[in-house]
Amino acid sequence: MNTSSSALPSPQPPYRVALAMPEATAGQFFPDAVLRGLPLGLELITDAPLTDFSTPEARAVLSEVDALFTCWGTPLIDTSVLDLAPRLKSVHHAAGTVKPYVARVCWERGIRVTSAADANAVPVAEYTVAMILLANKNVFQLSGLLHRGRTGLDPLTLFPRMGNHRKRIGVIGASRIGRHVLELLKPYSLELCVADPYLSAEEAATLGATLLPLDELVASSDVVTLHAPSLPATAGMISRELIDALKPGSTFINTARGELVDQDALASRLAKGDVYAILDVTTPWVLPEDSPFYTLPNVLLTPHIAGSLGTELERLAASAIAEAAHAANGEPLHHEVTLAELDRMA
Amino acid sequence: MNTSSSALPSPQPPYRVALAMPEATAGQFFPDAVLRGLPLGLELITDAPLTDFSTPEARAVLSEVDALFTCWGTPLIDTSVLDLAPRLKSVHHAAGTVKPYVARVCWERGIRVTSAADANAVPVAEYTVAMILLANKNVFQLSGLLHRGRTGLDPLTLFPRMGNHRKRIGVIGASRIGRHVLELLKPYSLELCVADPYLSAEEAATLGATLLPLDELVASSDVVTLHAPSLPATAGMISRELIDALKPGSTFINTARGELVDQDALASRLAKGDVYAILDVTTPWVLPEDSPFYTLPNVLLTPHIAGSLGTELERLAASAIAEAAHAANGEPLHHEVTLAELDRMA
Repeated sequence: MNTSSSALPSPQPPYRVALAMPEATAGQFFPDAVLRGLPLGLELITDAPLTDFSTPEARAVLSEVDALFTCWGTPLIDTSVLDLAPRLKSVHHAAGTVKPYVARVCWERGIRVTSAADANAVPVAEYTVAMILLANKNVFQLSGLLHRGRTGLDPLTLFPRMGNHRKRIGVIGASRIGRHVLELLKPYSLELCVADPYLSAEEAATLGATLLPLDELVASSDVVTLHAPSLPATAGMISRELIDALKPGSTFINTARGELVDQDALASRLAKGDVYAILDVTTPWVLPEDSPFYTLPNVLLTPHIAGSLGTELERLAASAIAEAAHAANGEPLHHEVTLAELDRMA
Repeated sequence: MNTSSSALPSPQPPYRVALAMPEATAGQFFPDAVLRGLPLGLELITDAPLTDFSTPEARAVLSEVDALFTCWGTPLIDTSVLDLAPRLKSVHHAAGTVKPYVARVCWERGIRVTSAADANAVPVAEYTVAMILLANKNVFQLSGLLHRGRTGLDPLTLFPRMGNHRKRIGVIGASRIGRHVLELLKPYSLELCVADPYLSAEEAATLGATLLPLDELVASSDVVTLHAPSLPATAGMISRELIDALKPGSTFINTARGELVDQDALASRLAKGDVYAILDVTTPWVLPEDSPFYTLPNVLLTPHIAGSLGTELERLAASAIAEAAHAANGEPLHHEVTLAELDRMA
């Protein structure tokens, strides 16, 4: 034991934590450097993540754990797990949706649950902002023409209204991601609009945006970006009628879910060649080899990368660790998921 | 005359202005809607831009003009022009560099000169920020693989350290553009570094960045972006040695000038395939048909579009008009070019 740290006053016993997730996931989200740097007050019971709650080793850890870090692939924390974990006080999910991993009984027994959904929204919003700025400059079209044509070209002759000044950006859905997109776009001289059936004009104004009906937003925006939740009620919400109403020259960005968009209608409209699409998600994913989205020159596909990947996974772990430290120190949690929120979730 | 406006108090006579630039330029920068909306206090003598100061029509305008708006293609304002414009008090350039358009004698006669260089820096910085965010996600590589391969792919297997969290961004040159890049990157969880021989560590810190020597910045950054001025002393400043020192996996962005970079060394390094380049400028521009930059899969070329184009030209006009209004109202100018600055310019 380190003499200097044992000499420090210890206001409360350490909050004993463990990882519950597949080993590969633990390695990506909670690499050794992260585990070695846990904040004061958190004590990791074991370096080995719990991958199956029924083993003797897992039972021994559960018997003394105060908090679990969960992630993609964590086995469901249900009554049988809780019965093995009498001291468990909080679960800190290092990803977005907690529902597949944390059973309702956890809330019923007073266990506090946090999610990293806010941190998870960040990379999607960043990807979206970058794509908006390049779409308004017709970067993808002009770059393609330059590489294929191998000669000079005059951008303004091709796209007289190119540019990021005073273009209208239409954000569909004031979700975590939609709001972060609006926040990140504030320093630009863009006209920000938002469509969301649960948002008031006043709330939109506090986000720096003008509230518009969905059809008006789609028909008048230079870039339309989709950030609505995937629910039974939102399936196909970007209908053929809306897709046909996209303004000529505009760009449609989907980082949400393919299911939200009439994929056939989108393909038909894109085949006309008068609008652009940037699609990080499609239905199905993977697209069949003969999908027109692969070959249409006005489509930019990316392989579902807008969300947290690589170094961005460490941001999710950092968010979960910060919440565990708050729980350990009796401080307010910043990203708690309540039972009411759980019931509203997809 | 409009009765209501003639009833308003007029604190001073109107400041009479005219455009001096080619007609096509005037149409792009100062479209009718802009000219109809000039701020109170400015009075446009004629809708017709002066394209040649020696015509009888131009002489008539010059004899009564208080301020000229200048732009790309304006004939040089020298002694012969000033002798025709006895009331001229200010020149408002709706673009970056004033030197080719405004002779030294203007300053010597006390005429105030403003530039739109700050507004002109904005789109370049915006393009750069967007490219940085997408470079860190390996968007261009992954999109290319997806479109060419027409099948699923696992981004993390290809690029395990992808992501915009905690990557190091190296900005070369604390120019207007370099500073605006740093400002726009503040909301992201990136490590910002800057190299500039005229910047102190303290000044770098106020820009949110760490000052590094150029060689260390180049060798350690995940994205290196060039924003140095093009001067005899900076020609070839991005030498073969620096290019060879670029970190494997990193991206080099040039929105400044091809002349700043050893183009052959860059082509050689890119042919190795272990770094990426996003080039909005090259030497020569246009590149010869057999340039490797057209075909290397790790190069993204754009046709000199990072700067102000399309709607962004109106931002430059707006900046010049705002300065004219300040001059008209005796207010401080925000973007004045002094004789000392002129002498330091390229």
